[in-house]
Amino acid sequence: SSATDTIRATLFPGDGIGPEIAESVKQVFRTAEVPIEWEEHYVGDQVDPRTQSFLTWESLESVRRNRVGLKGPMATPIGKGHRSLNLTLRKELNLYANVRPCYSLPGYKTRYDDVNLITIRENTEGEYSGLEHQVVRGVVESLKIITRQASLRVAEYAFHYAKTHGRERVSAIHKANIMQKTDGLFLKCCREVAEKYPEITYEEVVIDNCCMMLVKNPALFDVLVMPNLYGDIISDLCAGLIGGLGLTPSCNIGEGGIALAEAVHGSAPDIAGKNMANPTALLLSSVSMLRHLNLHDKADRIQDAILNTIAEGKYRTADLGGTSTTTDFTKAICDHL
Amino acid sequence: SSATDTIRATLFPGDGIGPEIAESVKQVFRTAEVPIEWEEHYVGDQVDPRTQSFLTWESLESVRRNRVGLKGPMATPIGKGHRSLNLTLRKELNLYANVRPCYSLPGYKTRYDDVNLITIRENTEGEYSGLEHQVVRGVVESLKIITRQASLRVAEYAFHYAKTHGRERVSAIHKANIMQKTDGLFLKCCREVAEKYPEITYEEVVIDNCCMMLVKNPALFDVLVMPNLYGDIISDLCAGLIGGLGLTPSCNIGEGGIALAEAVHGSAPDIAGKNMANPTALLLSSVSMLRHLNLHDKADRIQDAILNTIAEGKYRTADLGGTSTTTDFTKAICDHL
Ligand SMILES: CC(C)[C@H](C(=O)O)[C@@H](O)C(=O)O
Ligand SMILES: CC(C)[C@H](C(=O)O)[C@@H](O)C(=O)O
Repeated sequence: SSATDTIRATLFPGDGIGPEIAESVKQVFRTAEVPIEWEEHYVGDQVDPRTQSFLTWESLESVRRNRVGLKGPMATPIGKGHRSLNLTLRKELNLYANVRPCYSLPGYKTRYDDVNLITIRENTEGEYSGLEHQVVRGVVESLKIITRQASLRVAEYAFHYAKTHGRERVSAIHKANIMQKTDGLFLKCCREVAEKYPEITYEEVVIDNCCMMLVKNPALFDVLVMPNLYGDIISDLCAGLIGGLGLTPSCNIGEGGIALAEAVHGSAPDIAGKNMANPTALLLSSVSMLRHLNLHDKADRIQDAILNTIAEGKYRTADLGGTSTTTDFTKAICDHL
Repeated sequence: SSATDTIRATLFPGDGIGPEIAESVKQVFRTAEVPIEWEEHYVGDQVDPRTQSFLTWESLESVRRNRVGLKGPMATPIGKGHRSLNLTLRKELNLYANVRPCYSLPGYKTRYDDVNLITIRENTEGEYSGLEHQVVRGVVESLKIITRQASLRVAEYAFHYAKTHGRERVSAIHKANIMQKTDGLFLKCCREVAEKYPEITYEEVVIDNCCMMLVKNPALFDVLVMPNLYGDIISDLCAGLIGGLGLTPSCNIGEGGIALAEAVHGSAPDIAGKNMANPTALLLSSVSMLRHLNLHDKADRIQDAILNTIAEGKYRTADLGGTSTTTDFTKAICDHL
């Protein structure tokens, strides 16, 4: 393909095992001849005053320009006077929806083999407002903020996703029986959007009941949309059903069509540099990125190669009970391509 | 036993299937010769101005006087101008801790056979403050309130429970990485109490990670203590692991040693009066009540009879895949006594 067909994408390899698993993605993309040119950015070694965090202004500009990126794990350095890297990215890039496809991996056995759902989390407000204060000694409060704008936006994204991905049902998760005004507004917005998608079944499920149903029978769910904290909880719960964060892709959607795919697991400093890390979550996230770019052929090929390698079970990293190195596992995927 | 040995306890049979499952408890207690005299109270048919709900003032007075009670499911009538029955009970009786033992039932198969934990939920504040308002059109907020007093109180209860029930570990569940002040205060209180119990291992687990670990490996947990909403979510999740709310006991602890045990499932109006309901949750809750009264011999006998009946599998109600009536199942338990 000619140079003009090449898509530029930002790559944040991240810390710890990040560079190794990013290398795995680069190799798989080369082998699959994905027309992507990476623009690599690392977390800085001091606070950038323009971002108030260790993220450099240039790296944010890179995502804004390319509109698409892939991010490995980033550990926020400890200390005061700066913002969390993940929260800075969400805020600065207005990453309003976190989307996580979650499905049982053939050949990787957990207690569940019937998971096939998508969690869509509002990613900018709710319990994450950062507004907290002490009222009097021993009494503190934090504010949960729900807005019509952000709720409509994530609901729109969820229904549009359901429609364009052949999904049949959207469940809005809430606790409006207790938080009638905040979660009530969230539901009201979901209902408004639901009316525009008569072909999609819409239902509302209280969060406590939702978690109970998820562990009893996850096959009951299709697309779930929810406020920030419920999304944080439920997306991790769902990851647990299929084996954990090391196996779950994630993609953040921002205003103006930005997509920042990311591995949501930690940076695992204990095994960093040892060629032991499992690149699956970052690889599957890169597949989400390709889908966002409508490169479905490449996405399908790479996803199949990853899933087949895991299903075969010959090459598995230590976290999945195997003894393969990151490079062996990656090579096995490339051989499947 | 003489009349003076008899303990008076309040009984709220509740609505729907409530009276049938309450009858089951009464029969089992008679057969086991539990020295309890029930003082029955029903939900009123109009709002009692003194409670601002359909609960009568007399029924609350009864619990306050007896200090111990058992409650079936209560459906809050729909309409304005009154408070939810459950929330009224928690508020008026200051039921500060909700305690739910959750263990795999031998013979009743779910995806998990290794659950044996206790969830202890702060039951009075947090996200349940009821303080919400619209800031401007399209922007609403709700207040989460955490106090030192309520956090210390529930932490004390959790550690004391762990110590007196031969438990080894208390995990405080939180999201203090985001809600540093509110959940931070909760953790600070837990740490203070933990210092007084050096024989109990103390750990802190972020709620999203906790839910993931619970579905992957619930055997990692022992006693969990948490703010109100996390407790609401996690206690239902855990109930799901062992089969659902129809099988999980619950007991609310109030100031001054009040204990109100309750079945937390719904009132199932569709099967009410049909002799089909499963009384297990209310029966196991009545066992919690007996333990609170230090009637451990009776509690053990009744618990064994319930668990053995379920394990045998000959008599099971429809919700567990059987065809037994409530009365047959109850009779089978009595036969085991
Ligand atoms: C690390 C933490 C702030 C973050 C969150 O709560 O959003 C994480 O749990 C996630 O889901 O990305
Ligand atoms: C019905 C509802 C208000 C209640 C709660 O959220 O506390 C219920 O879920 C519970 O756990 O008792």
